[in-house]
Amino acid sequence: MSAPLRSSLLSQDRFARAAWSRVAEPGDQVATRLIRSHGPVAALLLAASGAEQNVQRFLPRLEVLDVERDLEVGAKFAARVVCPGDPEWPQGLDDLSAPPYCLWIRGPVDVASSCQRSAAVVGARSATAYGEMVATDMAAGLGERRFTIISGAAFGIDAAAHRGALATGATTIAVLAGGVERPYPSSHAALIARIVEVGAVISEVAPGSAPTKTRFLQRNRMIATMGRGTVVVEAGLRSGSLNTARIAADHGRVVAAVPGPVTSMMSAGCHEAIRSGMAQLVTDAAEAAEAIGDYGSDLAPVRRGPAFAGDGLDEPAARLLSALPVRKGVPVSRLAVSSGLSASEVRSLLGRLDLSALAERHGDGWRQGPAVRKARVDGDRKRSEQGESGC
Amino acid sequence: MSAPLRSSLLSQDRFARAAWSRVAEPGDQVATRLIRSHGPVAALLLAASGAEQNVQRFLPRLEVLDVERDLEVGAKFAARVVCPGDPEWPQGLDDLSAPPYCLWIRGPVDVASSCQRSAAVVGARSATAYGEMVATDMAAGLGERRFTIISGAAFGIDAAAHRGALATGATTIAVLAGGVERPYPSSHAALIARIVEVGAVISEVAPGSAPTKTRFLQRNRMIATMGRGTVVVEAGLRSGSLNTARIAADHGRVVAAVPGPVTSMMSAGCHEAIRSGMAQLVTDAAEAAEAIGDYGSDLAPVRRGPAFAGDGLDEPAARLLSALPVRKGVPVSRLAVSSGLSASEVRSLLGRLDLSALAERHGDGWRQGPAVRKARVDGDRKRSEQGESGC
Repeated sequence: MSAPLRSSLLSQDRFARAAWSRVAEPGDQVATRLIRSHGPVAALLLAASGAEQNVQRFLPRLEVLDVERDLEVGAKFAARVVCPGDPEWPQGLDDLSAPPYCLWIRGPVDVASSCQRSAAVVGARSATAYGEMVATDMAAGLGERRFTIISGAAFGIDAAAHRGALATGATTIAVLAGGVERPYPSSHAALIARIVEVGAVISEVAPGSAPTKTRFLQRNRMIATMGRGTVVVEAGLRSGSLNTARIAADHGRVVAAVPGPVTSMMSAGCHEAIRSGMAQLVTDAAEAAEAIGDYGSDLAPVRRGPAFAGDGLDEPAARLLSALPVRKGVPVSRLAVSSGLSASEVRSLLGRLDLSALAERHGDGWRQGPAVRKARVDGDRKRSEQGESGC
Repeated sequence: MSAPLRSSLLSQDRFARAAWSRVAEPGDQVATRLIRSHGPVAALLLAASGAEQNVQRFLPRLEVLDVERDLEVGAKFAARVVCPGDPEWPQGLDDLSAPPYCLWIRGPVDVASSCQRSAAVVGARSATAYGEMVATDMAAGLGERRFTIISGAAFGIDAAAHRGALATGATTIAVLAGGVERPYPSSHAALIARIVEVGAVISEVAPGSAPTKTRFLQRNRMIATMGRGTVVVEAGLRSGSLNTARIAADHGRVVAAVPGPVTSMMSAGCHEAIRSGMAQLVTDAAEAAEAIGDYGSDLAPVRRGPAFAGDGLDEPAARLLSALPVRKGVPVSRLAVSSGLSASEVRSLLGRLDLSALAERHGDGWRQGPAVRKARVDGDRKRSEQGESGC
């Protein structure tokens, strides 16, 4: 064991918490009560005594416990043990009814301060190409806005989120369900290694622990509460990411969901979360930042379509404008009939439209002015860029 | 002029309202005030006198007015004139600050009773293939639920909505911006002719009137208020269908919007309407019917994902279930270590899991029971149908 690690483990509490991360399953209510009542050291001795019946569930693992070995494996992978109360402990985890006993952390970033401005970006493992693209853009855009991206390194949305963050040099944190030294899924070994280099990889179970189904579910509660909010990019109706979103909502975190085609079952969970009021609809990183970020300082730009000539005109003026011909001027008497206005109203409104270049004299009559022609050209360009139909 | 039409026009009021539908633009505030104060006949005489300055706007058209001719054209196209207070007058229009002076209606259905259970289905003219498909399904599904589909016969979503309704034999109503005898757009002549055969085609302007830009905007206020709610299927940020939706919301109608890919500008208006709270998100006809239909009797089915074996188990039981091997049984002592439970807890829980066929004895130990295997097969089938990832 390395000297720094040994010194960091001088505290018996720290040692006992490392033991608990092997002995008790994540989120175990009995272990949590025991530690809360007696502290981690006394709780461990009590469990080892097997005195009370409800603590006997820890005996089978206590018999094979080897904390020194777990610490050695952790040290080999340069993992540090972070405990509640440590400066690097993410305070959000204290909101959980059964927080992790400790965290095993690899990577250079300070997890607590990174979580101060952070968003979990999660979603389906069997994501669509659409979902992966949106997740990458979402994470990159949040990263550019100085958000740390928290996710689970799983297939699909998780991996896309980490990659989007890495691509923009943003901080990203992967929370694993198994030991911190064990890349899972194994085909993401390179991705997880990269996150270890520049971000943080976290687990609440001791090195060597396997990622099991129940540990995945418990892992979700960490992703949901470490940060300030959760963005669900794609989720089927029974997706684990909806479970993450629900935990986040239950703990007062902001939950946002990205819509998609109603024909895609991979968006059905997002739509249901929006319909039920659990999540708010966001379409891009700017809107997610506004939802999750600091009130007032992370406002998304207001969405506007292209401006049209005549925006803001009152009703009779708009009517006259739409009655003006494009090419050949027509006399006031004909404009009166086509706009349903009196000749004097037409004359007065033409004066106003003329001032703003929306109407101009042509021959003996009037036609649309240069401002309309310009707006039409601009509008057509903008509409064709945006696929917008107008009217 | 035909005898029935002539007799239906015995009333001077009816004749005067037909005249107003030619003389004043739809929604004209001066005409509306005049008719409201003096009745349609006296208002017309007052306008023709040109006495007050603010009524002079009607003089240019009064000079060329030929109501008999408009009525003849209407009769030629078997259009009837329906006035406020008539049994066929859709009461929703009375909510408007400036309702139509009268309606010109072609087609066999009774418009007022059809609107009792109706939904406007509207959206972008330059719709995507996705949007047209969703609009067709939406209208067909609402039609199957006995909703009348109201729309504007325009390109894109409107046409898809009418076609979806026609395909299921549902009632559909097209509201035109120009004269009721003039199919617009002209390439939809066959569609509009079909609606005349089995539904209703409506206009508030006299036969022969051209569809102008301002008349399209005024037409939207009719679509928005004739029915009980509006579904926006696709809309750019400046789409006229958002204008329809806003009018519907302003008049207390239900507004629903269908989400789509966030990468599609044709769904941006829908997403913005949902984000602003103006519209609620709906993904299919069942949800739209629930939103717009009768409270309690039009409930959409609850959306559920596939059921998983072990749904509803408490946490220790779920942990044990996930520790059970698929094939070769393992002894209680090993299950205790892998699940983090005591041997006696494992034995007691195995008894429970055995009863529900979630665990079974195998050799000297225990493995997953037949109910898990069955659920896995069912779940895989359902997941592969739904593209669901589980977790």
